[in-house]
Amino acid sequence: MKREELTEKILDIKREKGWSWKQITDEIGGMSEVLVIGALLGQMKLVKPLAEKAAALFGLSESEKRMLNEVPYRGTGTPMPPTDPLIYRFYEMVMVNGPAWKALIEEEFGDGIMSAIDFNIAFEREPNPKGDRVRITMSGKFLPYKYYGNEQGIPDYGFKEE
Amino acid sequence: MKREELTEKILDIKREKGWSWKQITDEIGGMSEVLVIGALLGQMKLVKPLAEKAAALFGLSESEKRMLNEVPYRGTGTPMPPTDPLIYRFYEMVMVNGPAWKALIEEEFGDGIMSAIDFNIAFEREPNPKGDRVRITMSGKFLPYKYYGNEQGIPDYGFKEE
Amino acid sequence: MKREELTEKILDIKREKGWSWKQITDEIGGMSEVLVIGALLGQMKLVKPLAEKAAALFGLSESEKRMLNEVPYRGTGTPMPPTDPLIYRFYEMVMVNGPAWKALIEEEFGDGIMSAIDFNIAFEREPNPKGDRVRITMSGKFLPYKYYGNEQGIPDYGFKEE
Amino acid sequence: MKREELTEKILDIKREKGWSWKQITDEIGGMSEVLVIGALLGQMKLVKPLAEKAAALFGLSESEKRMLNEVPYRGTGTPMPPTDPLIYRFYEMVMVNGPAWKALIEEEFGDGIMSAIDFNIAFEREPNPKGDRVRITMSGKFLPYKYYGNEQGIPDYGFKEE
Amino acid sequence: MKREELTEKILDIKREKGWSWKQITDEIGGMSEVLVIGALLGQMKLVKPLAEKAAALFGLSESEKRMLNEVPYRGTGTPMPPTDPLIYRFYEMVMVNGPAWKALIEEEFGDGIMSAIDFNIAFEREPNPKGDRVRITMSGKFLPYKYYGNEQGIPDYGFKEE
Amino acid sequence: MKREELTEKILDIKREKGWSWKQITDEIGGMSEVLVIGALLGQMKLVKPLAEKAAALFGLSESEKRMLNEVPYRGTGTPMPPTDPLIYRFYEMVMVNGPAWKALIEEEFGDGIMSAIDFNIAFEREPNPKGDRVRITMSGKFLPYKYYGNEQGIPDYGFKEE
Amino acid sequence: MKREELTEKILDIKREKGWSWKQITDEIGGMSEVLVIGALLGQMKLVKPLAEKAAALFGLSESEKRMLNEVPYRGTGTPMPPTDPLIYRFYEMVMVNGPAWKALIEEEFGDGIMSAIDFNIAFEREPNPKGDRVRITMSGKFLPYKYYGNEQGIPDYGFKEE
Amino acid sequence: MKREELTEKILDIKREKGWSWKQITDEIGGMSEVLVIGALLGQMKLVKPLAEKAAALFGLSESEKRMLNEVPYRGTGTPMPPTDPLIYRFYEMVMVNGPAWKALIEEEFGDGIMSAIDFNIAFEREPNPKGDRVRITMSGKFLPYKYYGNEQGIPDYGFKEE
Amino acid sequence: MKREELTEKILDIKREKGWSWKQITDEIGGMSEVLVIGALLGQMKLVKPLAEKAAALFGLSESEKRMLNEVPYRGTGTPMPPTDPLIYRFYEMVMVNGPAWKALIEEEFGDGIMSAIDFNIAFEREPNPKGDRVRITMSGKFLPYKYYGNEQGIPDYGFKEE
Amino acid sequence: MKREELTEKILDIKREKGWSWKQITDEIGGMSEVLVIGALLGQMKLVKPLAEKAAALFGLSESEKRMLNEVPYRGTGTPMPPTDPLIYRFYEMVMVNGPAWKALIEEEFGDGIMSAIDFNIAFEREPNPKGDRVRITMSGKFLPYKYYGNEQGIPDYGFKEE
Repeated sequence: MKREELTEKILDIKREKGWSWKQITDEIGGMSEVLVIGALLGQMKLVKPLAEKAAALFGLSESEKRMLNEVPYRGTGTPMPPTDPLIYRFYEMVMVNGPAWKALIEEEFGDGIMSAIDFNIAFEREPNPKGDRVRITMSGKFLPYKYYGNEQGIPDYGFKEE
Repeated sequence: MKREELTEKILDIKREKGWSWKQITDEIGGMSEVLVIGALLGQMKLVKPLAEKAAALFGLSESEKRMLNEVPYRGTGTPMPPTDPLIYRFYEMVMVNGPAWKALIEEEFGDGIMSAIDFNIAFEREPNPKGDRVRITMSGKFLPYKYYGNEQGIPDYGFKEE
Repeated sequence: MKREELTEKILDIKREKGWSWKQITDEIGGMSEVLVIGALLGQMKLVKPLAEKAAALFGLSESEKRMLNEVPYRGTGTPMPPTDPLIYRFYEMVMVNGPAWKALIEEEFGDGIMSAIDFNIAFEREPNPKGDRVRITMSGKFLPYKYYGNEQGIPDYGFKEE
Repeated sequence: MKREELTEKILDIKREKGWSWKQITDEIGGMSEVLVIGALLGQMKLVKPLAEKAAALFGLSESEKRMLNEVPYRGTGTPMPPTDPLIYRFYEMVMVNGPAWKALIEEEFGDGIMSAIDFNIAFEREPNPKGDRVRITMSGKFLPYKYYGNEQGIPDYGFKEE
Repeated sequence: MKREELTEKILDIKREKGWSWKQITDEIGGMSEVLVIGALLGQMKLVKPLAEKAAALFGLSESEKRMLNEVPYRGTGTPMPPTDPLIYRFYEMVMVNGPAWKALIEEEFGDGIMSAIDFNIAFEREPNPKGDRVRITMSGKFLPYKYYGNEQGIPDYGFKEE
Repeated sequence: MKREELTEKILDIKREKGWSWKQITDEIGGMSEVLVIGALLGQMKLVKPLAEKAAALFGLSESEKRMLNEVPYRGTGTPMPPTDPLIYRFYEMVMVNGPAWKALIEEEFGDGIMSAIDFNIAFEREPNPKGDRVRITMSGKFLPYKYYGNEQGIPDYGFKEE
Repeated sequence: MKREELTEKILDIKREKGWSWKQITDEIGGMSEVLVIGALLGQMKLVKPLAEKAAALFGLSESEKRMLNEVPYRGTGTPMPPTDPLIYRFYEMVMVNGPAWKALIEEEFGDGIMSAIDFNIAFEREPNPKGDRVRITMSGKFLPYKYYGNEQGIPDYGFKEE
Repeated sequence: MKREELTEKILDIKREKGWSWKQITDEIGGMSEVLVIGALLGQMKLVKPLAEKAAALFGLSESEKRMLNEVPYRGTGTPMPPTDPLIYRFYEMVMVNGPAWKALIEEEFGDGIMSAIDFNIAFEREPNPKGDRVRITMSGKFLPYKYYGNEQGIPDYGFKEE
Repeated sequence: MKREELTEKILDIKREKGWSWKQITDEIGGMSEVLVIGALLGQMKLVKPLAEKAAALFGLSESEKRMLNEVPYRGTGTPMPPTDPLIYRFYEMVMVNGPAWKALIEEEFGDGIMSAIDFNIAFEREPNPKGDRVRITMSGKFLPYKYYGNEQGIPDYGFKEE
Repeated sequence: MKREELTEKILDIKREKGWSWKQITDEIGGMSEVLVIGALLGQMKLVKPLAEKAAALFGLSESEKRMLNEVPYRGTGTPMPPTDPLIYRFYEMVMVNGPAWKALIEEEFGDGIMSAIDFNIAFEREPNPKGDRVRITMSGKFLPYKYYGNEQGIPDYGFKEE
């Protein structure tokens, strides 16, 4: 059994039952809905109690439940550059704005990255008379490049230098 | 003269003067700093009054000023996948989380995309005892797929169906 | 069930019945034929009343009908660059004429894009003694780049500057 | 001298003089503005009388004038997939809608292609209270696949079969 | 049913029966053998009377016969660059000689292309004491680039200028 | 000095002098014009007496003349897939028709290839009331796969088996 | 049936029987073992008497035997660059040493190539106290570039010029 | 000035002076030699006191010194896959062993990654009678995937579950 | 049977039994756990006694056991660049640090590579109050480039020159 | 100075002087001509005494001489797949025959590779009445995969198992 097959099975059941993602994430709960949906789509791991709930909801076997609790090969199945317009727009934001984000973050925080691992994200509908907007709030831990082997009292993190 | 050459010249002056991006965007003002930096890095257009200010600040020629007011070939110069770790992390977020974002946005808004054009973004430092975080707030207009040729009273936008 | 499998099933039925696309789109109606065919080929969503009609026409199951009402992963199954000569010619038009289109649209409208989402297209046969022609009429909403953070009375859209 | 260098020179002069594309194409005239701009951007050939006018306008040398009259290596300088959002949207239209266009054209015309060579295109602004639109009208000669070697009275063109 | 599956079935029957391509194209007739073989390999359309004959020869179902009469997604299944040495040699000819062919054709015919659509090709064995040769004769219609919008008596085709 | 630089210099002189390729190949003579043009464009070697003539015609230095006599890195400078429409059409022919050509040649000649090295090509204008045609005649030596290590009287070449 | 499926079946039988390649090539004989193994792995054609022997050894059907006698689509199934370290090392030799090989062969033989078609290869173990070595002996026919259209007594082959 | 140009200048000076990397890193000190060399090769930032020392050693201008203190676009200039055999071997280790490393790390640590940012590495020569070995010791912080939105007492980190 | 199918079967059994990798490698023993896991994931060969043990543990057939003893096509199934974040971080280390590693190793050892074949690796958890770390120790034989054909007493290995 | 620039300079001098590679390698001597030419083309290192001789021959500066003594970034400048027909034929041999070579070498030697580092190669002209042949003799050290962590008397190398 491959993770893609489990994803396909879950989507088949969702479609057959006529469930929305909201119904599913309300049922499974316990964690941000982005992560739960990500796990059901084969991109995230569900911790045991949630895998338990998901298995009960979808009527999965013991093996399928354990597979939901495994860390998948993330990124599998999303062609890059994305062909889907909704996903492509995010890709374009990174490509066009990446250099400015790099300049801003490095000036504020020093040498490092914003983590894509210790990272959360929330989506909201932002009502707007000219057309509602998608509001996304992300927060990722800043991880400074460590400068090892430092023997002269130089701050050994990539943090902003005075 | 190519836009890359103007970008390189601007970075040379910034380095020589020892200016920070903050000093530069404070000076030019008028628009989100992400956009001003993006323009100086060759990814955005500066509207005329801002191009004027930038030209004054950097001592640019009339032609260079006009070039800042042109719409550049966006995306030039950013390899994809990004080799720079800071930019790559954003790319990875899109690749890994794209499918879940698509599911969430389409369920909430219907068929369409979040615009990468009518779109703004702000960065903030989020102090955190376990390590400060980068907080990003994005808001993009939802653009529904239009279903043209609709002759039967079917709502002709991609919005969420009841 | 994957969307490709549903597409293949629909094409099998069309072939078996000997239906033309015109017969199919006349039957389903309600929307531009480009969009209806696009949906049956797995690139567009059919809104509920049309998915209902398509399901009746092709004798689809409840699950298959719901799949037609889902937003697909657009772009799946079209290799780029296109290997098919008919599709490649359009690709070539974009590659060769893209820079001139960019110059013309930006000069007329300002900084922005022509939407590929709020966009319609019609095909016609244009009789011509030297050989009939394919006439294509497209119309897409112009979406100006928004310049956020504007605090100085500068028009905050990408529209043509005076 | 490479064609890119001539293009860069022409753009430098345009910028220095502060000319719009409209001023330039009005001056050179004689042909659709898309084609004239395409030639100045290095993607099309200018026929002799127009190359003459362009050379006079931009103050080009004899050699530069002759280069404008040469057929360039079309497609040079446009990365594919396009990184620029304006050009990418057209690319996306082809990728997402290509299969439906193929179905429609082949059903109406038979086996063949719409020419990308005997092809014209016009742009117009379509005023619209919800936001102006870009209206594009293209017309390309249909070129049927020829079926050679036909010895049995079968129509030897790819046209629609009865 | 996919076109690849039909191709595979046809090749299986050919192999089982021990037929040569010559026997097959003699039987189906009506058109150049390159085109008939191309159609059986999934790259060309067979017009109705020939699809009829092919179906009779291979014992195909009504649906399979209709599929042979459909325009396939040409180019599917041939990796580019070609890995097969026989096909690669043609690819290499294009890559190495393309620039010289372009120079020669444009000088003789003006701005345009040799059609890959209204195009025929014949293969012959050319006996030669140093080793027989493959003789290929191709003839493709020259398609001049049209220069639309011409208002000044300039010949509006890409033909050779005097 | 790189071969591309020599090619650029030769094209500059040709443009300045207003020479056609025909004038140049008539002057240099000695070999098929496709090969002479190929050499001047950096894809072929000119044998010494022809390099001598080319050097005299273009006023090249001793070193430049010797470079024309060197075997270049063939294929340099032609992007694949070709972006230029004229060259792309040949590429498309190979991609679409390659499988049929393979079937035909292998059935007639056995296992092997048509050489791209011992190979000649001629172009002609074929007058045609429906539009003149480009006629191309190619002839390449058939090179059978050798089956070495053959100890049992099996014909050790790839030729057609009886 | 695809050639890959036949290859997989042959490997399954080899594994089940516990045969070595040496046992298999001894049994089939008649040709270099590299070629026989190549054919069983789907990269070469087996001439009829050898296909006969291979079919007897592996218990293949008439159709499978004929497939072994067909020329396969060579190169199918070997990703390039090779991911397997053993095959990659050969790829690296070509990449790193290719320019020097080109210089040496062209200086010794003139303009041409070493054939990859009329080509044989043998492997041997070369005992060596510092670690045994793989000894490979290849011999390929030199194929000179032909210079057609030669009218002046210039040697019309690419051989070394005096 | 581009970072590549500064790198090239530094390498020119090193070559001219005949310095070894060891002499250079001893002189600059303060940090692991891998990082110092990485910075001089344009892949790392040198913190201010070290940039000061490097500038003194190489006789750099104020601007060049500041450039060494900037965070570069990491990854620029290293083709991937690497063509250089020394670097390729590391790439191959990742490709071949990546799946096993993933299994081992995830089983020991839970869901997360080993940081490539808070990461150090040391090289040593390991004398060995069969041939000296390169000994590499790396240590990277384990970064657990955070599971946000956790409302039910589930440990909100990706750490190993009991 | 393909190696991927065997890998999938082994993972299915592992999941069904609820075994950890540690339990499996303890059971099979005999070799570094990285190698045993690598073999079970289809990237390494298991020597006979270990294949025997693995077959007993997983209840494999004789053929499956032999397949574990075969050298697989290494690298199959790991997309490069890796999409999985855990594996990508190692890829990034190579891309960003490769040039510095090359400089350091070549200065210490001379011209050559660190073997990816005669190479071992160990993972350990390194407890750390700021977050545990993954400690990796690798050791690979240095393989000097051999300089053959040396006739003048020059050391014929790539070792460090005095 | 980049290595490519030094290579270009060396080729310019060789062309100006009219030297053959044989004259050059005879003069420099000391090592296989493939390696010396490789070094002059920027793919190999010249050990000091040979760099000395090369510098004397070409009149190089001290810095240029030292650059010849550096290990270059091998593989730079050879596009893969190779566009040059001579180099491509070797690439094709690897692609088509790689699987058979892998089978043969692994059966004879066990699990491992033939080194591309401790490797030599010689070219010879093999006179043949049907056309002279290029004879290549390569010999590379077999490097067995080491199986570390072996605690049970299993031979810890990848050598052929009995």
